[in-house]
Amino acid sequence: MGGSSFGTLFRITTFGESHGPAVGVVVDGCPAGLELDEVVVQRDLDRRRVGQSRMTSARNEPDAVRILSGVFEGRTTGTPIALMVENTNARSQDYDTIKDLYRPGHADYTWEAKFGLRDYRGGGRSSARETVGRVAAGGVARALLGTIGVRVFGYTTQLAHLHAKQLVEDEIERNPMRCADPEVAPQMVALVEQARRDLDSLGGVVEVRASNVPPGLGEPVFDKLDADIGKAMLSIPAVKGVEIGAGFDAAHHRGSQNNDPFERRADGTIGTATNHAGGILGGISTGEELIVRVAAKPPASIAQEQQTVNRMGESALITVKGRHDPTVLPRLVPVAEAMLLLVLADHWLRQRAARV
Amino acid sequence: MGGSSFGTLFRITTFGESHGPAVGVVVDGCPAGLELDEVVVQRDLDRRRVGQSRMTSARNEPDAVRILSGVFEGRTTGTPIALMVENTNARSQDYDTIKDLYRPGHADYTWEAKFGLRDYRGGGRSSARETVGRVAAGGVARALLGTIGVRVFGYTTQLAHLHAKQLVEDEIERNPMRCADPEVAPQMVALVEQARRDLDSLGGVVEVRASNVPPGLGEPVFDKLDADIGKAMLSIPAVKGVEIGAGFDAAHHRGSQNNDPFERRADGTIGTATNHAGGILGGISTGEELIVRVAAKPPASIAQEQQTVNRMGESALITVKGRHDPTVLPRLVPVAEAMLLLVLADHWLRQRAARV
Amino acid sequence: MGGSSFGTLFRITTFGESHGPAVGVVVDGCPAGLELDEVVVQRDLDRRRVGQSRMTSARNEPDAVRILSGVFEGRTTGTPIALMVENTNARSQDYDTIKDLYRPGHADYTWEAKFGLRDYRGGGRSSARETVGRVAAGGVARALLGTIGVRVFGYTTQLAHLHAKQLVEDEIERNPMRCADPEVAPQMVALVEQARRDLDSLGGVVEVRASNVPPGLGEPVFDKLDADIGKAMLSIPAVKGVEIGAGFDAAHHRGSQNNDPFERRADGTIGTATNHAGGILGGISTGEELIVRVAAKPPASIAQEQQTVNRMGESALITVKGRHDPTVLPRLVPVAEAMLLLVLADHWLRQRAARV
Amino acid sequence: MGGSSFGTLFRITTFGESHGPAVGVVVDGCPAGLELDEVVVQRDLDRRRVGQSRMTSARNEPDAVRILSGVFEGRTTGTPIALMVENTNARSQDYDTIKDLYRPGHADYTWEAKFGLRDYRGGGRSSARETVGRVAAGGVARALLGTIGVRVFGYTTQLAHLHAKQLVEDEIERNPMRCADPEVAPQMVALVEQARRDLDSLGGVVEVRASNVPPGLGEPVFDKLDADIGKAMLSIPAVKGVEIGAGFDAAHHRGSQNNDPFERRADGTIGTATNHAGGILGGISTGEELIVRVAAKPPASIAQEQQTVNRMGESALITVKGRHDPTVLPRLVPVAEAMLLLVLADHWLRQRAARV
Repeated sequence: MGGSSFGTLFRITTFGESHGPAVGVVVDGCPAGLELDEVVVQRDLDRRRVGQSRMTSARNEPDAVRILSGVFEGRTTGTPIALMVENTNARSQDYDTIKDLYRPGHADYTWEAKFGLRDYRGGGRSSARETVGRVAAGGVARALLGTIGVRVFGYTTQLAHLHAKQLVEDEIERNPMRCADPEVAPQMVALVEQARRDLDSLGGVVEVRASNVPPGLGEPVFDKLDADIGKAMLSIPAVKGVEIGAGFDAAHHRGSQNNDPFERRADGTIGTATNHAGGILGGISTGEELIVRVAAKPPASIAQEQQTVNRMGESALITVKGRHDPTVLPRLVPVAEAMLLLVLADHWLRQRAARV
Repeated sequence: MGGSSFGTLFRITTFGESHGPAVGVVVDGCPAGLELDEVVVQRDLDRRRVGQSRMTSARNEPDAVRILSGVFEGRTTGTPIALMVENTNARSQDYDTIKDLYRPGHADYTWEAKFGLRDYRGGGRSSARETVGRVAAGGVARALLGTIGVRVFGYTTQLAHLHAKQLVEDEIERNPMRCADPEVAPQMVALVEQARRDLDSLGGVVEVRASNVPPGLGEPVFDKLDADIGKAMLSIPAVKGVEIGAGFDAAHHRGSQNNDPFERRADGTIGTATNHAGGILGGISTGEELIVRVAAKPPASIAQEQQTVNRMGESALITVKGRHDPTVLPRLVPVAEAMLLLVLADHWLRQRAARV
Repeated sequence: MGGSSFGTLFRITTFGESHGPAVGVVVDGCPAGLELDEVVVQRDLDRRRVGQSRMTSARNEPDAVRILSGVFEGRTTGTPIALMVENTNARSQDYDTIKDLYRPGHADYTWEAKFGLRDYRGGGRSSARETVGRVAAGGVARALLGTIGVRVFGYTTQLAHLHAKQLVEDEIERNPMRCADPEVAPQMVALVEQARRDLDSLGGVVEVRASNVPPGLGEPVFDKLDADIGKAMLSIPAVKGVEIGAGFDAAHHRGSQNNDPFERRADGTIGTATNHAGGILGGISTGEELIVRVAAKPPASIAQEQQTVNRMGESALITVKGRHDPTVLPRLVPVAEAMLLLVLADHWLRQRAARV
Repeated sequence: MGGSSFGTLFRITTFGESHGPAVGVVVDGCPAGLELDEVVVQRDLDRRRVGQSRMTSARNEPDAVRILSGVFEGRTTGTPIALMVENTNARSQDYDTIKDLYRPGHADYTWEAKFGLRDYRGGGRSSARETVGRVAAGGVARALLGTIGVRVFGYTTQLAHLHAKQLVEDEIERNPMRCADPEVAPQMVALVEQARRDLDSLGGVVEVRASNVPPGLGEPVFDKLDADIGKAMLSIPAVKGVEIGAGFDAAHHRGSQNNDPFERRADGTIGTATNHAGGILGGISTGEELIVRVAAKPPASIAQEQQTVNRMGESALITVKGRHDPTVLPRLVPVAEAMLLLVLADHWLRQRAARV
């Protein structure tokens, strides 16, 4: 198990390198009878795609997905759904000059330390292009969870020192930063432009939410819902931190403030008056909105000169050329959504085995 | 798979409830030939034990571990190592008054939503007592990793608004907060005493480090070293956030600041001049120190009156009696160490399959 | 993963050596709400126990099972069920004389080749005593499947050249060979007595059946119901072959004979007129009776002198002392039942995720 | 986990239906540095391909494999190796007449019982075409194991009442039955021709051997080498039985006959004088030749009229048209080889974690 699979019952296996023939995913364990076609999956992929705006890198690929198996007459059959996207726009020659250099902040050195060799073209499998398979699979999970009304959406909530103060959901897809705050969004755009001019890059935070999650999802102890979400998010390239609900801020509060009192809702259901828990107690969903935040480091690929060593261990200077994003945030949004969708789909299926 | 197992090759399965006959763990996949006995495991368990100080709850159990299998003539045999601790000091009657009430911030409601019933005695399996098995297994992992010089240690770095400013390793076990800053430690102790008098509880942050980790550990994509660490930490009761290296603070920095330049060391090895990455690049260890921080919420059990509902959905007031910690931090330290040890032991074994 | 776990959702992990402190099992993933107590589990364990008759070895242990977790007020809670049996009657000194010799037909040599050392007392973990955990877990599975009316039972169908010709279910537990043919049973008993006098041992075949299995159990491709049954059975010590339905005999028939015609039953359900398939088509249960046969080799431990080598690779003669069965068949019956029960319980839970 | 993955460290996931766009496999966990290209994989696929002779069905597809990922400059990189074969010659219209009928001996009824619907074109995923992915992955495993000299080969040893009496390895690929006995091979060919004229089909037995397997492969208890081989073989379509070494015949022998005496070889290694164990003791390889036999039922698709029911449960007659093999044996050989190779590759990697 080389680590390219995720999930227990709704289980995906991704494959593909940045500059190889194709990237893709096999979804094994999707229940039979779900309406599915390429259009559904393409919708999420298009949101992940590069070349959407000046916020993201200049590489332009249609990323047209092809369903190779698992769907018959517009419905899933219960067999593996293989989804493939051909790589059509890879310019490998960009990378020849750095094949013997370790780019700071990149996985060049660690992959060689692990495997003894690496596919240096565009980062190989450590490229952000690897997330195509995640997002495609996430599209399937979104369709599956849609049958019970679960809705997942994300947005940029922080870029460098700029913090969004509002959550206007309609705003998200209207600005290139996918920021939900119409006032802060243009400031973020301007800051990215500045960083690009400075040949530099910026970090930030993305928040993802899921509403209508049934209570009871998540397994005790190791496969807690938040534990699996944590793994899901920290498996995304560039992510360095994850928190649930109040998260690190919970460290600042007393139990009497942080506890969410239970209350009976008008519709007879039980809920909590506040949601510092972010929708999870004891690793199991409460039925309240799931709230997850992930911190992304500034992209390691910057066009300014940096100090490093080469494969022989000699001191060297490096300037990373190629088409790179000054920030990952807008494209991180659909990827983080996908990972949350995958965790929820898996635990929704697992939950079916909880009672006699 | 009810979620009580963790790891791929070095794989543990824990069992046991707070007020059942015993808690324990089965470690499957520990290599043969490792020197091991009860003394080694007991050392870590003793650090986790309650009743060590006024910082922790008053329940006092020796937590004497018994090795049931997998060790012969002082060495592991390659077969499952079963470790058991009998529960000797459970006062179940403390909980009878609240068996029909959902304690705010606890898993009472979510477990019932999941399973339709719950063992309400002392939180059942959602009790912190569940971590006995983790720490026992972590002791085995510590012995295993000790054979290659890996060293893991943790400490409290934040309690409410109090932040440690120094890292004096010898100080850690000298104060009841396991704070590595001799100046801040007594302030933390005082703050806990105050919270106890206020019938309230406090959150905070624990940092765990691993040194001497060989480069190359971690699998690409989903089983990244940091992803598995993230899952490990978020599976611990009360943990609401986890970050690696610069973590959420990386959001504030530019790529030119955050990238760690590679350099050749005097001993010929390759390292980084800084360590914002926290010892992991692309999900694989760099050989630099691993740095992980986990945020813990204030314990949900507080002795003051809180608003809630009962199992019938009726409004009710609750006062949580019993022996509870005003903060989990000192006891979180050995548990977080154990989880990091388990991840490292597993990935060290997995790494053996990386090359032909 | 040292190979001591079995199952995907209903997942067991066994532990323990023949002469260690205890043997046992952790059942993770048993649904909540199942009525369970020690009496239910003990029933199966008692059938596995040695010392029942002259057919089996003279070691006499009560094998009293203790439930350590996962059950509260007579019902499972959804958490791991740990079951332990203490070893009370181990005479380790029997084995000192052979600790440096490789017993023919035993795992002494292969375990050393694998692990570099072995627990030589009573075969350590390769002892038949390892099956205690399987049978205990099988008892839980039997209770679970009993809620939907599934019934599993086994019997000896062949001993050396003696073949049972009838299946009289009530006869099975009446004779020490667990043979379902009242005419052949006494001949089998006599043959075992003869083998014992000859200081030799006998092989044979056990058949296990499951009735009332719902159609639809089993996953396509690798986790076919028969594939998992095959693994389950071949993981039992001494088993060298497994077949489903017509099995090896299907090689002798034409398609027109071997195909089972579908027909509509009086009750409106669909079934097959014959059952050469043994209740499985395409890896998925048909609803007809499951029929599985396992071949067991003659026990390797025989009291006559055999040629072998010692750990230094020197030629040596060996006489295996100790308390050994001249045939494993009567005790194989409950173990094979347990393994079939475990597979069915797992696939019954997995089946819940098959459709939207 | 829909059951389309196999293996722990060397782990494959197959996908694809008989009449969908493509079939294929993702191999995750293959070590880095292995020489690999399409030619190596194609070699095994060509042996599996239909249209090779009159023994097999008339469907003719080139089955040209394409490596989509995981290989760079002629070597594996440690990342998933995706292998795809496009379906180019599917005549779906053949199946329209039977889409509402349950073919006897086929998985039509059971798949519907499980999933509520089925892809009826050519058997969908229960078609023998699903084995393309297994054989492609087996080719990778063969290359990997070739680096340590392991050699795996199979042959037809029984067709209906015809038993091969010799093992002439060079003969295997010379006759369309892949029978290793030059005298019996033409009789088998004649018998298949007769069955075809009779609109009927034949069952038989394939034997697979592995030489040069290092001692020590296989994990104790559930993941025994023979248990995993058993699962591997019984997961192949049409296989109804599997045995190791003496197998079911061991039931006829006494311990004194069946035990293989250990002896010291001229080269100083330890081996056994006989090999009734088939190369496995206690679930772990001895270093002797691995010997596995699998029984295949006669193909269910026969051109003569059979009794069945339709989806409405009404009695009906069926004649299965299409291009079908009168026996699966020649094509079963490379599939069974592939499955054995996959098990060995996986356990070879797992073995690396057995000792400190």
